[in-house]
Amino acid sequence: MQSFGYAAKAANTPIEPFEFKRRDLQAGDVHIDIHYCGVCHSDLHMARNEWGVSQFPLVPGHEIVGRVVATGSDVTAFKAGDLVGVGVMVDSCGHCAQCHGGEEQYCEEGFTATYNSEEKTIGGMTFGGYSDSIVVDSKFVVSVPDNLELSAVAPLLCAGVTTWSPLQHWKVQPGQRVGIIGLGGLGHMAVKLASALGAEVVLFTTSPAKGADALRLGASQVVVSKDAEQMESVKNSLDMILDCVAAPHDLDPYLNALKTNGHLVLVGIPDSPHKSPNVTPIVFKRLSISGTSIGSIKETQQMLDFCGQHNIVSDVEVIRLDQVEDAFERMLKGDVKYRFVIDMKAGR
Amino acid sequence: MQSFGYAAKAANTPIEPFEFKRRDLQAGDVHIDIHYCGVCHSDLHMARNEWGVSQFPLVPGHEIVGRVVATGSDVTAFKAGDLVGVGVMVDSCGHCAQCHGGEEQYCEEGFTATYNSEEKTIGGMTFGGYSDSIVVDSKFVVSVPDNLELSAVAPLLCAGVTTWSPLQHWKVQPGQRVGIIGLGGLGHMAVKLASALGAEVVLFTTSPAKGADALRLGASQVVVSKDAEQMESVKNSLDMILDCVAAPHDLDPYLNALKTNGHLVLVGIPDSPHKSPNVTPIVFKRLSISGTSIGSIKETQQMLDFCGQHNIVSDVEVIRLDQVEDAFERMLKGDVKYRFVIDMKAGR
Repeated sequence: MQSFGYAAKAANTPIEPFEFKRRDLQAGDVHIDIHYCGVCHSDLHMARNEWGVSQFPLVPGHEIVGRVVATGSDVTAFKAGDLVGVGVMVDSCGHCAQCHGGEEQYCEEGFTATYNSEEKTIGGMTFGGYSDSIVVDSKFVVSVPDNLELSAVAPLLCAGVTTWSPLQHWKVQPGQRVGIIGLGGLGHMAVKLASALGAEVVLFTTSPAKGADALRLGASQVVVSKDAEQMESVKNSLDMILDCVAAPHDLDPYLNALKTNGHLVLVGIPDSPHKSPNVTPIVFKRLSISGTSIGSIKETQQMLDFCGQHNIVSDVEVIRLDQVEDAFERMLKGDVKYRFVIDMKAGR
Repeated sequence: MQSFGYAAKAANTPIEPFEFKRRDLQAGDVHIDIHYCGVCHSDLHMARNEWGVSQFPLVPGHEIVGRVVATGSDVTAFKAGDLVGVGVMVDSCGHCAQCHGGEEQYCEEGFTATYNSEEKTIGGMTFGGYSDSIVVDSKFVVSVPDNLELSAVAPLLCAGVTTWSPLQHWKVQPGQRVGIIGLGGLGHMAVKLASALGAEVVLFTTSPAKGADALRLGASQVVVSKDAEQMESVKNSLDMILDCVAAPHDLDPYLNALKTNGHLVLVGIPDSPHKSPNVTPIVFKRLSISGTSIGSIKETQQMLDFCGQHNIVSDVEVIRLDQVEDAFERMLKGDVKYRFVIDMKAGR
């Protein structure tokens, strides 16, 4: 079926209007009318081919919310009119150990990404959510609670689940002390989710100006990471730290802040290596440095249900499709609190 | 009471005969006649003050086995004549969260090491097992099964439990594939213990010559780590890797060898940093890089019981006290299979 969106047609040109075909509805598919799509930092990297893997034309967008238009004959979980979301994945092999275990994000054959992956039904590449509609296998569609501001739900599909998954995997409990490094798109969701889970949240930032906002979002304490005295004050006090900063940085002060058996979990991949971490505290406090990648479909649904119950959404600034290039430039300057979301119904 | 041993009297002189006082037996103490003491690599570092913390005179030795001579009035777990062992720790604070949890090795106030720690009863420093007897709080004494060759039990008290503890903490199960890096004092125990636990053991070594020995000790497969093709052949195949090499090395080929959710566990601390590990596989396979330090008293006892049931001991070369300096030199050349053990009853 015909779809309209915005595509990057080359790495060095602005994204622009683009007409393209989606596959026709298959028996297991859901056809979704897209209302909003979040603007993830990776959209910018991919539109500009900064990771060297982009295939053009490329329609970005993997924080998608909208309403079901139609469903295939085998679909029972959704019906026309339902509020639904689609995140970073639209398919996976379905038969590897990870897929069998319900962790499609670690599919051993590599999951099919919402954009810039091979489209297995009609060929070519998958196209993302900077568009008016999408057709997705129902196994990769999640229900969106109807009590939340829909525009602000969109970023939950990537930024939300990417921070939710490690909080679940490392079993964050009420009363635990959890550190979050960086107050951006991911970090602001991590603060909201960890505090709603009952953790005492310590936000680490290089910008003292972000302190007030962090406390508003749910942090109990703000530590300016450039201030050695403030860092020393949280020594050996945290059960887990979620590191939401992709830029290369020194991990040692955070290892110092962890309790025995603590976990430092990275969700960003630096362009050049972090300074090599000091092994001494890792051995003498049995620490771990780990990482996680987005989250499973099951975790995405659990996170959305949790957000519905706790009234949690992203802090967003809504824009039109023709403002995305400006939004990219503002993201590069860190000028967004905390996620841009495209209103697909706003004038094109 | 009077004790005889060998001490380093300065960093740059050979260890030599030394008469010194042990504390008199306290109500909770066990007085042990030492039969054998293993020679750990850290004994060499400490005797030569290579870590800058040595207090001289220094009596090394923390892989101690012998027989109980006498027990204090409060001791019920041991009686004269019992075969017992003492490892790296002889005391801890007893009241921190780690001590309460039975993990004295992570005591938040720092455990009392068997040598070169503050002796809290009579002052001065603790003196280790290169001596004829020792007096130790019974809580830090373990029972030694009587079916094992006693000289070869000694190294279990440090090398054994240091490799046992991570295998337990990360719950190695029959059928899992476990990598061991380095076939030295620690590595050879790791191979024996992991294979006895039912794991399929892959030994990584830089020396092809060690292959036959690794297979004899229980490995199913030997991978020469300098051979990129051999390394590639175990890609994504291991549940856990225990890294027994303290020298700085590249961790990335081992991250590559781990399955999703795999753990790389370091038990050695390099003098200079390892190359900074690549974050990409850590994030995309949810790997962890962790470390552990020796093991608890409870784990030490469990390990000794397990070794008794499975007839596991260290491969040792028995020497006299006056041969320790030669043994140190041979250790520096890697010329030991796989642990020197001092026979305290042999001619002084």
